[in-house]
This record gives sequence, structure tokens and C-alpha cells, in this order.
Amino acid sequence: MALIVQKYGGSSVGDADKIKHVARRVIATQRAGNQVVVVVSAMGDTTDELVDLANSVSSRPEASAREMDMLLTSGERISMALLSLAINDQGGVARSFTGSQAGIITNEVHGNARIADVTPVRVKAALDAGEIAIVAGFQGFSRASQDITTLGRGGSDTTAVALAAGLKADVCEIYSDVDGVYTADPRVVPSAQKLESIDIESMLELAASGAKILYIRAVEFARRHGVDIRVRSTFSDDPGTIVYAKKPGENMEESVVSGVAADKSQAKVTVIGIPDVPGKAAEIFTLVAKAGANIDMIVQNVPTGSDVTEHVSDISFTLPKGDLASVVEALEVAKATIGFRDIEADDQIGKLSVVGAGMRSHSGVSATLFEALAKAGINIEMISTSEIRISVVTSLDEVDEATRAVHTAFGLDGESEAVVYAGTGR
Amino acid sequence: MALIVQKYGGSSVGDADKIKHVARRVIATQRAGNQVVVVVSAMGDTTDELVDLANSVSSRPEASAREMDMLLTSGERISMALLSLAINDQGGVARSFTGSQAGIITNEVHGNARIADVTPVRVKAALDAGEIAIVAGFQGFSRASQDITTLGRGGSDTTAVALAAGLKADVCEIYSDVDGVYTADPRVVPSAQKLESIDIESMLELAASGAKILYIRAVEFARRHGVDIRVRSTFSDDPGTIVYAKKPGENMEESVVSGVAADKSQAKVTVIGIPDVPGKAAEIFTLVAKAGANIDMIVQNVPTGSDVTEHVSDISFTLPKGDLASVVEALEVAKATIGFRDIEADDQIGKLSVVGAGMRSHSGVSATLFEALAKAGINIEMISTSEIRISVVTSLDEVDEATRAVHTAFGLDGESEAVVYAGTGR
Repeated sequence: MALIVQKYGGSSVGDADKIKHVARRVIATQRAGNQVVVVVSAMGDTTDELVDLANSVSSRPEASAREMDMLLTSGERISMALLSLAINDQGGVARSFTGSQAGIITNEVHGNARIADVTPVRVKAALDAGEIAIVAGFQGFSRASQDITTLGRGGSDTTAVALAAGLKADVCEIYSDVDGVYTADPRVVPSAQKLESIDIESMLELAASGAKILYIRAVEFARRHGVDIRVRSTFSDDPGTIVYAKKPGENMEESVVSGVAADKSQAKVTVIGIPDVPGKAAEIFTLVAKAGANIDMIVQNVPTGSDVTEHVSDISFTLPKGDLASVVEALEVAKATIGFRDIEADDQIGKLSVVGAGMRSHSGVSATLFEALAKAGINIEMISTSEIRISVVTSLDEVDEATRAVHTAFGLDGESEAVVYAGTGR
Repeated sequence: MALIVQKYGGSSVGDADKIKHVARRVIATQRAGNQVVVVVSAMGDTTDELVDLANSVSSRPEASAREMDMLLTSGERISMALLSLAINDQGGVARSFTGSQAGIITNEVHGNARIADVTPVRVKAALDAGEIAIVAGFQGFSRASQDITTLGRGGSDTTAVALAAGLKADVCEIYSDVDGVYTADPRVVPSAQKLESIDIESMLELAASGAKILYIRAVEFARRHGVDIRVRSTFSDDPGTIVYAKKPGENMEESVVSGVAADKSQAKVTVIGIPDVPGKAAEIFTLVAKAGANIDMIVQNVPTGSDVTEHVSDISFTLPKGDLASVVEALEVAKATIGFRDIEADDQIGKLSVVGAGMRSHSGVSATLFEALAKAGINIEMISTSEIRISVVTSLDEVDEATRAVHTAFGLDGESEAVVYAGTGR
């Protein structure tokens, strides 16, 4: 008998018919001889509607973070109760649990709490009694403040993985309207192929590089706790993609390149003419951190040619578009103190990443990448690499074309076109 | 400094503008030098919408009572968080509490739990910190099952009164779109007058007699714990009606008749030709109780005239219309065993009640009542009395006219027409 944690996203429980469909699926999983824990998100647009309500009564709802958590957690309470009702109606026996009841213990940071402990005593008792346990995603409970907290973006994925870890589940299935992990976004690369499996390090790099299938925090949690994840569609029986966190069999060869991801949410800042004095880079990034921005890529150019005599350098970095204005403003204020010459800001960039665990033992990946981009006539603005990833920044309007060119160059193209699903698979 | 518990019903927090209005009202109450605890119902039609959702995923949602409670309690969670956001936005400091967090401890009967204990430790701490405490109405927490429960119809009124008792509040204000307790329903009797005050026993009889201003359970709770209630409108500054549970000043004279109430929700069953043998009435009412019906009035007629020789009697009783079919069916099945001759069922009845604490010391009330009805040509089908109430059953189509006639006969008519508000003041 296996213990399976299933997580259904908002679009999977978007209306009564979909909830009844999920109920059938859950019951079938149990009847196949498994213990089943189900984590649910709020129905469809519920969370957005609740945020709209908050904005209609308050000019700054985010200032009341505790109350916003109280408000938003009602969404999962509704969907989990409805799913339990549907399961009971179809002859199953379900019992729903809030994050607090399921033992999802967090720190006390409202709106973006971190899971500190998982004590699923009541969930275990329900499973032992032959029941299906339904757990509200996205929410937890702070022992210190005795208050309800939320886990932030992708919180339901994190709930599912944390419960799977806490219950030592055999697998954590993440259901959405996307039927697996693809070699690239099928909406951009029609010849993208679904992967049967991928190692969790590559999945982590893909998630960090803009692939929106799984949330990076949940993947990171799964990697740390050795939780295998299966990504599959609520609306098909396709087995989807298994993301291995436990060691797969010895004979599994790691692919050189698992996939190509593009991220269009970043902007680029270049600080020009920084005096070549120790500590200037630290000054700049301290300022940026104080402005609250999450830096991604950093490249320092030591200029050649005529500038060399001036003993100055340039630094470029990427950051989320939403942080661009405040960072540029903070830098402008400190311009004289730091002593740089100018700032350039560019929000029309795209980041392309090639990811694969096999890169560790294969050379030539960067050569293939640069050759493909050169042949497609695409200019590279920045480059950064990790052990199993190479990322390049291009202009925003060229990144889709770049993705297709690179996908082809690494031999990832399938023979038939990928099925493209609507929605974002949250 | 007074401690005031305010309860706002669903129509008072029906949309964003109303929530902001309530927020202003709450802040003003605190700024006037009071400690304020606010109990809120779910917004407008939220509860009905949640019930509709439940019915759309399950053919028998009521069979999953625990899950229904999980579902329905999300409504108050939304309204209390929104009210807190609105108060914080307007410069107040609010903190919201679920029933469980507010220490509303109940037994474990889902859907209609009884309050077993009130331990508002966190509410007190919030008040001591100068905060406004917002509490979800209608919901509690069972220590035995560790589950969330609901208090049934009028549960938010009960929450407010229970908290007022537990906190030893000076007064419990019940806000709705009705601005007080009237001598009769102003929609039926245009000359009905608003009472400045009423004793809680009379209020209890009025509530039991069909007046829909306060729920009988809440009034009963207030009477037992000595909680004064003020009934007033969310949308005016009128002081409304004070319902005295504590002893009012000695010089307050109790009015003979406080008001006239009509109840159109009842039906009447007459069991005809019951053998005049001891224990037959017990047999009948045991059956009725097993069918789950709540009996109200009971009248036994010992027939006169030709029937006397047969040694049989008739019993009539009233019960909620919804219980009529199942009770009649249960009786039909037992017809031979009990040995009665026939059953008559009538769902076209109205119950008219005259209520007043002064009846204890005044005679002639029933004479005035019967005279008024006779003069109006209205036939009386049943009569029952308590220490401070007389109720009569008439035909449904005559009960409004009867109410007006009786209201006039007891000198309750005001000089101007009462203001009639829309809505039901839930």
C-alpha cells in the first residue's frame, strides 16, 4: 500500500463539475489500494476576488498582513470542504483539515511564512481510519503568535511537498492543467516534448529560470527532504513527468540538456563608470538589497580599449521588473557618494536558460548554445552559468526565437506538436 | 469606560461601502471612550451561496455535517477580516478572531452546537492593548472533537450575547436594518410604535411568538446571564430599544402589553376521536417527537353533545409547516395501534400573541383580546396562555387584520406611521 499526496491547483477545482471530477479521481486512487492525502488550492479566481474585496474596503490592505491572511485562507477552507462533500457524496469517506489542524507549523511572518515543522497527527489518524484526508493548501499556523499564516506564492505546492515529507509519502503528485514538464514552453516551442523524468536539481534550475510548472520553494523543499514529485494533468490519465529527488536507478543516464526555459519578467540595470577601488561593488549591492530587490545575474565588465586608462568598470545585473524603479532611484541618490558616471535601465530583456544535470560531465554545451544563437542572428547581452545551467540575456523581442533555435540545436524537438493547455497551471 | 459588544448582521456588512460604514461606527464608539468587541455575520447572501455550492457538488451535503460547518464558517472569516482591514484603514487598530480563537467553546453537535463555555482570553488581551476585537459570529470550537462547529440559526446573536456575558460587558448592541423592537410588525400594522425599552421576559415571549427581531436562543441566553441588549439600526443614530435583563430602576412601570406578534410559519394538526384511555396523549406525542417536530401549542377538546357517549376526545397541536408531512405520515402509520378515528391537517393558520410583563398583575387582558377579535369578526381556533402571553390561532388570511385590531384595542397605536425598513434584519 502506497501513501500518495495529491495536490490540486485552483483551475483543477474551479467549479462544481471539476470538483466532482477530482473527487472521482481521488476515490479511484484510494480504491487502487493507496492511502491518499489531498492538498487543495482555492477555487479558480477566489483568491483574486478576495484581494479585490480587500482593496475595496482598504487603501492599504497589505499593511494589515495578519488580517489579509485571515481573509485569504477562507478560500482553501471553501474548496476543501466542497471536495470533502463531493467525495462523501460519491461513496468515499473524506475529512478536511485546515493548515493548523494538519500540523503545518510556520514562523510568524504573515503573507510569506516559512514552514518550521510538520506534525500531521490528525492526518495520520484519518488515514489509519481508512479516510481520505483533505488539507487546505497555502496556509499554516504560528505557534509563537497563535495566528493563521500563509505561505506566499505557490504555497499549496509547498504544503503538499511538506506533508509528503512529514508523512514519508511514496510520491507527491502535483495536478494542474499542465500534463508534465516539457523541454520548453509548448506555447513558444510547438515541437517541445514532455519529459518522462527529470532530476530534481535540473527541475530546480528550470523553476528558477522561469519555467512556471512548479514553484521553486516547493522544489527546493522536495530536494532537501528527498520527496519525489509527479507533475500531471487533472484532466488526463497521462502519467506526466516524475521529478526524482530520491536517487533513481544506476542505469538511468542523466540527459545533457533537460530543457530550455525563458523568463520575461526581469529587467537589467547597468552601472557605468564605477571607480576601480575595492568595495565599490559591495556599496552598490548593499543599496540594492536595502531597496528590497532580488538580484539574479551579475556581470562585471572590465572595459578594454580607450577606457582602460580611466581605471573604471561597469556592473550589470538583472532584477524583477517591479523592483526596477526603486533600485534606480536608490542608486541615483547615491551617485555622488559611490562616484559612478551613469545608470542604464532596460526592461525589454529576456533570459534564456539551458538546464541539464548531464552538463556536469559534458563539455561543449556552451559552444552549442552560442553557435545556435549566432546562427539565428541573436545578440547576447549577458551570460551566467551554474554547474548545470547556462543563462543568457537577449532582447525581449528575440527571446522566443532564441528559445526555438536553442531547443532545435540541442536535439530536443519532438516529431509531433505538443498539446498546449489553457491557463497557467497554478 | 464601558465595555460594549456590537453585533452586525449580514445585511449590515453586505458590501464594501456598508463595511466601511460599520468601521466608522465602531471606531466612533471606541473614541467615545469605550472598549469595543464586534461580532459579525457573513456578508449578505454569502451563506446562501455557500449552501448552493454544497448542493452543486453533493446530493446530500447535510449528511456531512462536519464538512458543512467547515464550509459555512468561511463566510464569517471573510467578513471579519474585511471589517478589520476597513477599521485599520480608517486609523483604528482591529484584530480579528475566529470563534475558536475567541474562546467560544461548544459541544460537538455540528450544525446546531450549544455553547458550553466562553473563554475570551485573547479578546480580553486585545481590549487591554487598546485594540478593537472583531469576532466571527455563528461559529465555535468543540474541545472534545477538536473541530469547528456552528451554532445554527441566529448563531451570531448568540455569539454576541455569550461574549457579552463572558466579558461582563455593559451592553450587547444588536445592529441590523431594523431600528428597534416595535409593538407590532410595522409592515402589517402601520401605526406600530417603537418601544424605548422592554423587559427580557416579554422579549423572550415575543421572539417565541414569531417576532423576528432577535433569535430566541440569544434572548434566552441573555436572560439567564443578565445581559442587557440594545436593538438598533446600523444606518441611523436612533438609540433603538433596550431589552432589560438586569433589573431596571424601581420606578419603571411594567407595561401591561408590550407588543403583538404574529407567526405565519406554523401548521395545525387535529387528531380526532382518540379513545378516552390514559396514556393515549403520551403515545401520540412520543410519535411526534420521534418524527423530529417541535410542538408549540397543544389543546385537548373533550367533546360535548352527541360525542360524549362515545368517550373519545380530540387533540390539536401546532408545529412548523416543514414538519407537517412527516408527522401526519407517522400518525397515519400508527392509526390502528393508537385507535383514533381521523387526522386533520391545516397549514393555513396564523398565530397571534399578545405579550406583556404587566399581565402578571393585571386582569382583563384576555377579555380585551377576545372582544377585539369578535368585533373584527375573526374566528379563534385555539387558545393558549403563559404567565405573560396569550396566543390565539386564526386562519392565515385573517391574522394580519387580527393583529391590527388587537394592536388598536390595547391602545398601542402611534400617531404617525412607523418607518418600514427593507430586509429581514437577520
